[in-house]
Amino acid sequence: MFDQLGLIGCGLMGGSFALALKRAGLVKRVVGYSKSPSTTERARLMGVIDVEAPSALLAVSGADLVLLAVPVSATEATFKAIRHLLTKDTLVMDVGSTKREVIDAARRVLRDQVGVFVPAHPITGKELAGVEHADADLYRGRQVILTPIERTLTTQIDKAQKLWTALGCDVKLMSPEAHDAAYAAVSHLPHMIAFAMMNAIKGQAEADEFLSLAGPGFRDFTRIAASDPHVWRDILISNREELLAQSRHFQRALYALEQTLSGSNAEALETLIDQASQARAHWRMSTNKPKS
Amino acid sequence: MFDQLGLIGCGLMGGSFALALKRAGLVKRVVGYSKSPSTTERARLMGVIDVEAPSALLAVSGADLVLLAVPVSATEATFKAIRHLLTKDTLVMDVGSTKREVIDAARRVLRDQVGVFVPAHPITGKELAGVEHADADLYRGRQVILTPIERTLTTQIDKAQKLWTALGCDVKLMSPEAHDAAYAAVSHLPHMIAFAMMNAIKGQAEADEFLSLAGPGFRDFTRIAASDPHVWRDILISNREELLAQSRHFQRALYALEQTLSGSNAEALETLIDQASQARAHWRMSTNKPKS
Repeated sequence: MFDQLGLIGCGLMGGSFALALKRAGLVKRVVGYSKSPSTTERARLMGVIDVEAPSALLAVSGADLVLLAVPVSATEATFKAIRHLLTKDTLVMDVGSTKREVIDAARRVLRDQVGVFVPAHPITGKELAGVEHADADLYRGRQVILTPIERTLTTQIDKAQKLWTALGCDVKLMSPEAHDAAYAAVSHLPHMIAFAMMNAIKGQAEADEFLSLAGPGFRDFTRIAASDPHVWRDILISNREELLAQSRHFQRALYALEQTLSGSNAEALETLIDQASQARAHWRMSTNKPKS
Repeated sequence: MFDQLGLIGCGLMGGSFALALKRAGLVKRVVGYSKSPSTTERARLMGVIDVEAPSALLAVSGADLVLLAVPVSATEATFKAIRHLLTKDTLVMDVGSTKREVIDAARRVLRDQVGVFVPAHPITGKELAGVEHADADLYRGRQVILTPIERTLTTQIDKAQKLWTALGCDVKLMSPEAHDAAYAAVSHLPHMIAFAMMNAIKGQAEADEFLSLAGPGFRDFTRIAASDPHVWRDILISNREELLAQSRHFQRALYALEQTLSGSNAEALETLIDQASQARAHWRMSTNKPKS
């Protein structure tokens, strides 16, 4: 049980965290701050936060739990804004989709206090950004990856694990490097490809007709293309090296398919599709199903 | 109302068509044939067809409606097998995802009788192939594209339109060329990319770990990668020129994103993502919603 959550960023991810924490009875009071005062006000009117703070620092004042739910590029400035009121008992977490840049910022700004920060990445989201889509169930049953560094305090890691587990999450610990490589492959590259797919269609004169004919396969394939541009700009840039490496893997695999097509090599093409189809058919998303 | 549906191919698409037709009371009797006798038998035991035919020709015997629901590459052989029992009143349709090759095969084989054939492409499907996944609702609310040629009989086009409309579909007429270009963009290329994505991951030593970390975005993005390899081999090959042209559009759009990444040009990257995000957020799938 925490006395006060200091929530920096009252959007979809932050707002949903506050709602989940409240519903689980894990926090007495939520003090929230968003860059946009109208967001903070809406969060209070919706009951997502209890008190509006006029600054990130004041949201952290008196908090024993702090969540940064801001775009990755805003992390360093946020750490700077709040560091003076962090104590050695404050549990500080983020929800960013990339971890190395966030950790570098934490080292630079928090210095001796970096041990209170437990980098976290909950594997969830929605294409509908904003506090109005906050949802107490957003995290339930999802994986949460924690990427502590050597200096992270084990007491804080324990607290973080218990907290996410209490919200119904499946907690996994990884190194920041392994995290960033894996999510370049299974999240950041799929997003970049989905963006490219939409732009490729929109760049053609027949775009509107093409789109009017698309069906349920296209709907699911491109769902992630509707993601928030500012948030995803940051994610792609902060993980650009791993992302470009994964894009090269993808382009080689695409080229292999194209070669069988150009040569009308039906057998080789079917073999390649069969590999992909088997891999996808056998894949199951890890979830934290309640034990029966 | 039809007296007899001759169903060639009792899999997911064909079986679902038979079930939908029966439920709508549009057919008295369904005679089915599949290459695999065990599929035909299963279709009869499930009540999808009423009578098992030992050949495609015998399924067509006495039929006033014929549906070819076979892989695109099997179309020509199927036309050859059935042409002797087609009358000038038989309505013949297919459900193939590409139209030009199917129409070329129809011209070559049916010759003077080509007018009875109304090429059709219902925009629906499932990743679970086989008659055991046949579903009377598979076509309801979906678009069906008809691509008649000059010689197609208008009486047959009328019958086809009424039939699909009675199944709850939204019928649209297009030229075969415009159809194949559009579906290269919004269906065939997304499938090829999803196949390439799975193969790119499977080709890496960390594949299993990467896949264990993937979340709901990846699930939806790669759903179509589980599609039937034989069916999709045929679709991609039969539309390879349009598909390779669309792939070049896509690769240019991907390259534009990569350039902004390599240069850490956050503003240009956000502009490109914003275009994609807006396009996807404004897109709505065309469906045949019941009028209120």
